[in-house]
Amino acid sequence: MTSPTENILLAMFLVFGSAKLLAEVFERLKQPGIVGEILAGIILGPSVLNWIQPTDLLKALAELGVVFLLFRVGLEVKSSELVHVGGTALAVAILGVVIPFPLGWFIMNRWGEPHIESIFVGAAMVATSVGITARVLASKGLLSHRASKIILAAAVIDDVLGLIVLAVVSSLAKGSVNIMELLATSAVAIGFTGIAATWGTRTMTKLIPRLERHLKAGEVQFNLAIVVLFGLALLAIYAGVAAIIGAFLAGMALSDSLDTRVHNLSNGVSELLTPFFLAEIGLHLEVSTFANAGTLLLCVAVTLVAIASKMAGCGLAALRMGWRNALRIGAGMAPRGEVGMVVAQIGLGLGVIPARTYAVVVFMAIATTIIAPALLNLTFRDAAAH
Amino acid sequence: MTSPTENILLAMFLVFGSAKLLAEVFERLKQPGIVGEILAGIILGPSVLNWIQPTDLLKALAELGVVFLLFRVGLEVKSSELVHVGGTALAVAILGVVIPFPLGWFIMNRWGEPHIESIFVGAAMVATSVGITARVLASKGLLSHRASKIILAAAVIDDVLGLIVLAVVSSLAKGSVNIMELLATSAVAIGFTGIAATWGTRTMTKLIPRLERHLKAGEVQFNLAIVVLFGLALLAIYAGVAAIIGAFLAGMALSDSLDTRVHNLSNGVSELLTPFFLAEIGLHLEVSTFANAGTLLLCVAVTLVAIASKMAGCGLAALRMGWRNALRIGAGMAPRGEVGMVVAQIGLGLGVIPARTYAVVVFMAIATTIIAPALLNLTFRDAAAH
Repeated sequence: MTSPTENILLAMFLVFGSAKLLAEVFERLKQPGIVGEILAGIILGPSVLNWIQPTDLLKALAELGVVFLLFRVGLEVKSSELVHVGGTALAVAILGVVIPFPLGWFIMNRWGEPHIESIFVGAAMVATSVGITARVLASKGLLSHRASKIILAAAVIDDVLGLIVLAVVSSLAKGSVNIMELLATSAVAIGFTGIAATWGTRTMTKLIPRLERHLKAGEVQFNLAIVVLFGLALLAIYAGVAAIIGAFLAGMALSDSLDTRVHNLSNGVSELLTPFFLAEIGLHLEVSTFANAGTLLLCVAVTLVAIASKMAGCGLAALRMGWRNALRIGAGMAPRGEVGMVVAQIGLGLGVIPARTYAVVVFMAIATTIIAPALLNLTFRDAAAH
Repeated sequence: MTSPTENILLAMFLVFGSAKLLAEVFERLKQPGIVGEILAGIILGPSVLNWIQPTDLLKALAELGVVFLLFRVGLEVKSSELVHVGGTALAVAILGVVIPFPLGWFIMNRWGEPHIESIFVGAAMVATSVGITARVLASKGLLSHRASKIILAAAVIDDVLGLIVLAVVSSLAKGSVNIMELLATSAVAIGFTGIAATWGTRTMTKLIPRLERHLKAGEVQFNLAIVVLFGLALLAIYAGVAAIIGAFLAGMALSDSLDTRVHNLSNGVSELLTPFFLAEIGLHLEVSTFANAGTLLLCVAVTLVAIASKMAGCGLAALRMGWRNALRIGAGMAPRGEVGMVVAQIGLGLGVIPARTYAVVVFMAIATTIIAPALLNLTFRDAAAH
């Protein structure tokens, strides 16, 4: 009866419908469906048809989508297994920062871009958007593969490292670095992640059945899971890391405590909302960036460096697992997605990077995200699904 | 990392968490949990704690919540059974319009309120918010009870009748009634509802398995269900009826075509979002209305007339099913909820009802919604769950 309802439903119908339609087309062409869903956002968005604008509502649905996606992935992972691969994952995360950062800076610097802009592009290259990789691995039934576990653990660590890099870079842009503040920030982030990862499961396996026995209103287990999910996602934000890391840790903590039916209930939310997360990434691509040949060339160069540097850095750290696994892990860490875009937005907000550099980073973030699923398909081709 | 994500998650955590907490408290006090969830909105909202404001996002989540709630209810209902009770349902819907409308006008008129305001309050009394009743009946496992089916069918018909009443009243407020336009509007609404209700199931039981055989990307059945849901909800809006009627018809059309697992996937969305629908109703209550004793008295009088007139009208039409079922159906049709508020908003928008009358209608809409679950509990006390 009211017009807002119509707008909401129309936007959801268009985004969900075309994302799934293009996913189907891509799967038939033996391409990753996920790329079709991002492409749906590009086509519907301001750059091409302009039927859908990136509104606050779509952004909120996208954020909820990736939160539930990571929660779902967490539910399929045992924290003990993740701690088991911790050493390798730490190496993968660290080399995934140490190699891309200077290379990102270098390519921009060689291109004649100013120093601080080059540093921000380097920082954006550090980011890992684990949502994309998680979606691909989950849809292939490969989450329990050893390489998948290392990717997931490394992505969590990478988020903490990325936070530190971003804090340093932002301080540099503002003109001063406060070492004590930086140490405190890092300690809180590491402390939260470490505690949630190691004690989460133990606490929940005791707490959930006990609460379940005492509560009686409705879907008790599901309601408790949602409260834990939102609670840990919020705590993650307060600790300085991303909400999706909290969501992943919440899923992992609950992985032993929920019935299959409750898994399905929460999977329903992620099935509905994940297309919005993917399409929303596409909405931000400005096709007009292509108009300038120089900028386009820079976009392509930065994207190539972004992929090569993550594959080299992360692959190198995992080389003792064999070159095949090294490539898998490198490909899994390559997409920058929404995390890379957030770094660019902060640079834009601080006034240290101009619109052109912002467009380059957004292009790199989307392009790596589109290329990574194909790389994952290729490198995991002969891996057995569990 | 960004502040919008924090705001979204914090609002969701507070609304979902406190709604479920109060639902638990109410269930322990042998009261309907649903009332606790509405109360959570009142307490968190501007009237009491002012922790949560009714934002566009919460409104959108609320609308999606009631859309998925009605979809879920539709999935549990067979259209053939609804058509079977069509005669009684039609009588219930018609008497549920014919009795409350003049009584609503009468009480306002006696109170000394202007003519056009009294007519709008009468129109708001015609509305039925089926979401509340559906939630109560579903949670008690009573959706297949004969009285429940009559309530659902009558609520669908009532929405069409309410549309016609609102069109007439709005035309009166604007000063002229276009009979031809009115007939065309009614014909489209009745045509859409009739076709979707009678042919929907037949079409979907043929279409869904055929499409399923040809599609391969991801959760095919779930994706098709979502597209049908959003599609019919949109068509309903274009046909002039409410989106939730389209959602209900979509659920009914698909009730024979979806696996249990897909039911669970879509139930997850409604479990997550229904608390937002309920709490959002509470957010709109202005406790300051109580400050004026005269207004408060009018609120109470209008609410009593609203409940009595629906119970009398709908009950009368169902009297040959026994007084027990008549009371059940009357109680089920009593909540005005968000539909009553929409009518009041239109009156406010047209400038024909002042803020005070608006507050009275909102009070009536919320109060009937809070009282109805208790009436349903009482009247259905000795009904067997199926």
